[in-house]
Amino acid sequence: MTTAPQTTAAKAVTASGGPGAPKTARGARTRARILKAAEHTFGTLGYHRAGISDITRAAGVAQGTFYTYFAGKEEILRELVRDMGHQVRAHLAAEILDAGNRLEAEERGLRAFLQYLYENPSLYRVLQEAQFVDEAIYRDYYEAFGKGYVRMLANATRKGEIRPGNNEVRVWALMGMSNFLGLRYALWEQDVSFDEIVDTLSDLFRNGLTLDGKEKP
Amino acid sequence: MTTAPQTTAAKAVTASGGPGAPKTARGARTRARILKAAEHTFGTLGYHRAGISDITRAAGVAQGTFYTYFAGKEEILRELVRDMGHQVRAHLAAEILDAGNRLEAEERGLRAFLQYLYENPSLYRVLQEAQFVDEAIYRDYYEAFGKGYVRMLANATRKGEIRPGNNEVRVWALMGMSNFLGLRYALWEQDVSFDEIVDTLSDLFRNGLTLDGKEKP
Repeated sequence: MTTAPQTTAAKAVTASGGPGAPKTARGARTRARILKAAEHTFGTLGYHRAGISDITRAAGVAQGTFYTYFAGKEEILRELVRDMGHQVRAHLAAEILDAGNRLEAEERGLRAFLQYLYENPSLYRVLQEAQFVDEAIYRDYYEAFGKGYVRMLANATRKGEIRPGNNEVRVWALMGMSNFLGLRYALWEQDVSFDEIVDTLSDLFRNGLTLDGKEKP
Repeated sequence: MTTAPQTTAAKAVTASGGPGAPKTARGARTRARILKAAEHTFGTLGYHRAGISDITRAAGVAQGTFYTYFAGKEEILRELVRDMGHQVRAHLAAEILDAGNRLEAEERGLRAFLQYLYENPSLYRVLQEAQFVDEAIYRDYYEAFGKGYVRMLANATRKGEIRPGNNEVRVWALMGMSNFLGLRYALWEQDVSFDEIVDTLSDLFRNGLTLDGKEKP
């Protein structure tokens, strides 16, 4: 494949491609700053009340600069959710990287997710609100998340670390758990320690919930 | 306690009380019809785009009639979510009433919830959107749901049907599971049978997820 000559930095930043993709490393930094400002602005004011001028003010850039990178409010929301998804997944992947087995990965992943949501409360609000702008934004986020998660469970099944079963269904159940636990205990009220939450779920993963026909612990 | 004389029907409908509560059985029916119309209107147009005139048109009542029962759009949303919450809980309670034990109650409850969501897709959208009008509406819905659920798990713990553990944390995990499974498999795509979903979760509740140190099934 032949491409036009580019500097190394430009190559790196255009790898993600797409219209509006920055041509230089400096452009990539500006774009990232605008995305960060949008995250904060949408997270605090809400998508509907937030204007592009609120975002550019928070980012410290001119309105024209915004339009160099994004076509408008809906497009930046779409890019923001995609970007937040990459960040959460990269963060969790790093946290569970050297987990000894799937149970440990679930424990570490849940703890890291709760902590991440606590430190990045805008994630939840922006994501939730995005479903009313375009449901595909929201759906893509969870489908991307779920895809990698199913692969990990399939791997764990092959290694004999988890019971064989419908891993896709499990993944949606597990994502739902983390989501609601995060909403309740990381965002609304921090009245139960993350350790206690992780221990409770770990017990479910190891032993199930019911005792029917089993000895009491 | 002394109360003014009332007809039996009037007593029944004013039991829920509050301003705007209908004084007659006929009034209660009108109010219920307006709520049903609001559910459909918010569910299809979305809260922000829906106007009171859309609701009154769908209900076949005059605008003045709307204001006999509700102060405005935000109030009817609040009442609607409360009303939907009562309905879902009553429906699920009836479905699990004669379950033999907690595992069976979980299985039946999950199946009934998936079916309910499939038949009442507005529930999800209205509820999700309500959190951006007033987060308390959304939070109250899940807290009311969770309260009864915690009581049921406490009961099952006493009867030795489930492992002792933090039932409140479990309840938020379980509500999250149902929620995401419903979103994915009842609302977005019905590509996995509800039986398969219930079986997958039932296996988790009975046997856990991991095999570490246990024999393979």
